[in-house]
Amino acid sequence: MLISETTKRLKEQLQQEYMRSMPLGAGLEPHLGGALEDTLAHPGSMVRALLAAKVAQSCGVEEARAHQLAIGIEYFHTASLLFDDLPCMDDAATRRNAPCAHRVHGEPATVLAALGLINRAYGLVWRAAAGLDEGIQRQALDYLEVQLGVAGVLNGQSLDLHYGMNFQRATTPQEIAMGKTVTLIRISLVLPAMLGGAGARTVQLLDRLAIFWGLAYQTLDDLKDVLYSSAQTGKTPARDALLHRPNLALAIGVDAAFERVHQLMRLSDNTIMKLDAQGNWGFLGAVRAQFLRETAILTDEQLARAS
Amino acid sequence: MLISETTKRLKEQLQQEYMRSMPLGAGLEPHLGGALEDTLAHPGSMVRALLAAKVAQSCGVEEARAHQLAIGIEYFHTASLLFDDLPCMDDAATRRNAPCAHRVHGEPATVLAALGLINRAYGLVWRAAAGLDEGIQRQALDYLEVQLGVAGVLNGQSLDLHYGMNFQRATTPQEIAMGKTVTLIRISLVLPAMLGGAGARTVQLLDRLAIFWGLAYQTLDDLKDVLYSSAQTGKTPARDALLHRPNLALAIGVDAAFERVHQLMRLSDNTIMKLDAQGNWGFLGAVRAQFLRETAILTDEQLARAS
Repeated sequence: MLISETTKRLKEQLQQEYMRSMPLGAGLEPHLGGALEDTLAHPGSMVRALLAAKVAQSCGVEEARAHQLAIGIEYFHTASLLFDDLPCMDDAATRRNAPCAHRVHGEPATVLAALGLINRAYGLVWRAAAGLDEGIQRQALDYLEVQLGVAGVLNGQSLDLHYGMNFQRATTPQEIAMGKTVTLIRISLVLPAMLGGAGARTVQLLDRLAIFWGLAYQTLDDLKDVLYSSAQTGKTPARDALLHRPNLALAIGVDAAFERVHQLMRLSDNTIMKLDAQGNWGFLGAVRAQFLRETAILTDEQLARAS
Repeated sequence: MLISETTKRLKEQLQQEYMRSMPLGAGLEPHLGGALEDTLAHPGSMVRALLAAKVAQSCGVEEARAHQLAIGIEYFHTASLLFDDLPCMDDAATRRNAPCAHRVHGEPATVLAALGLINRAYGLVWRAAAGLDEGIQRQALDYLEVQLGVAGVLNGQSLDLHYGMNFQRATTPQEIAMGKTVTLIRISLVLPAMLGGAGARTVQLLDRLAIFWGLAYQTLDDLKDVLYSSAQTGKTPARDALLHRPNLALAIGVDAAFERVHQLMRLSDNTIMKLDAQGNWGFLGAVRAQFLRETAILTDEQLARAS
C-alpha cells in the first residue's frame, strides 16, 4: 500500500482517538453499551478523518482542533453506516468484516448508539470551532448543517432508498450520489479549510475536488458491489441489484463506469493542480494514487471474471 | 384552561415558528418531504418550547435567541417521538391524534426526517449561543451534549426499551425517567438560563426544578397510560403493560403514584419559592397550576373507573 510512514502514524493516532473519544460511562445500558463498544472497535479506513486532518494541517489549523473535527466527521460517517445497515434500509448482515451491530445488539440499541455518535460528533465539531473568529464559526457550522441536513445527505439517502418508487421524478445515480456520498467527503475537505481561515478560492477548489472524488468513490463502490465477493469488501455484495438501488455500474455498464472514474480523476487532477499553485497540498497526490490503485484492482477483478 | 393571553400568544407564535423553521427545499424526496410536512403540521403542546422561552425572558435573553433555542429543543423532542414510535421501539400507531409518520411515509423516511430535525436543532441551538461569551457557550453546549448523549436521554431510552431484559441490573422506573423524560425538561429550563448568564445558584435551582417536574410529568404520563382511553391522550394507551415497559403506576400502584406526584409538587414548590426570592419567575406558578389541573382530571378519571 502506497502510504507514507507519517500518514500511517497519523492513521493509527486517529484510530486510537476514534476508539477513545466517545465517553462510555459505567451506568450504560448493556445493549447500548455493547453496540457502541463493537462499533468503536472497528474504526474502518478512517479515510474521511485522514483527509480532514491533512487539509487542516495544510491550512494551519492547530492539531487539537484538527483531530476533534476529524473524529467528529468520522462519527457522523459511522452513524450513517449504522442507520444504512438497518433492516428498514439496506438490511445488511456484515460491516467492516463483522456482523452488523443491529444483528448482535438489536435495532433499538443500534439506533440509540448511532444517535449517541451523532450527538458526540456535533459536540466535537463545535469544540473544534469554538473560540475562533465568529464569521469563521458561522461559515463552517452553516456549511455543516446544509451538508448533513434534509437538502444534503438525508435527501441523498432517501432518494437512494426510494429509487424506483418515485415515478414522477427521474433521478440519476449521480444525483443521488451527490447527496448520499459526496456530502461527507465535502465536509472532510471543506470544513478544515474553513476553520483554518482559507480564502474563498481555496474553499471553492476543495469543494469541487470533494465532488469529483466523492463521485469517483461512489462509482468505485458501485463497481465493487457488482464485481467483488463478500470476503473482499467486508460487506454484503450485489445488494444494489437485489434491492433496486441506484448503481452507476448497473445503470451505464461496467466499462462506462470505469471510464467515468477516469474522467473524474482527470477533473480532480486539474483541480489539484490549481490548488498546488497556492499552498502545501502534496498529500492529495497520495489519495489520488490510492484511487488509481483501487481502480487497477477492480480492473484485474473484471478481467479475471471475464476470462 | 388556565393560560394567560400573553402565554397563549407566545404559544401560537412558537407553533408558527415550529412549522416554519425547518427549510424544506423543492428537491426533497417525496417520502422524506411527506414525513417532515406531516410532523411539522402537528406541533403538539409545545410545553418545552414555552418553558424555554419563558425562562429566557426571565433571564434577559434576547427574543431571537430565545426562540431559536425553544424551537431547537422542540425539534429534539419531536425527533425523539419519531424514533420512540418506530416498530423496533414502541411500535405505536398514533401520535398527536394522527397516524404515526412511519405508518404513512415508511420507516426509512421517518428515520431520515427525525435526523433532519436533529440536525436543524443543533444548528438552531448553536445559533442561539453564537457570539455570546465563550465561557457561556461552552457551559451551555457541554450541558446539552451530556443531556442528549449516551449518559442522558439515550441511556434512559435504552433502559426503558430493555426493561425486564437486563436481569443483572435492577433499575427503577424513576431512574429510567431521569434519563428518558427529565433530560429534555432539564435542557428546557437550564439552557436558557445559561445563555442569559444566570448565576450558579439560579442554574442549580432550575436544574432541580426540572428534575421534580420531569419526574412528576413522567408519573402523570404513566398514570394516563393506565387510566386513559386513546381518544383522550391522542396516542396508543396501555402500551406499558403490553410491552413490559417501566411504569411507576404499575410498579407502585395508582394511589402511591398519585402521592408521588403530590410529593414532587411540594418539592418543586419549595424550589420555586427559593427562585422567587431572586427574580421574575411568576410564570412558574402557571405551570404548577397546569400540573395540578392534570392531576385533578386524572383523579376524576380514577374515581369514574372505580365507581
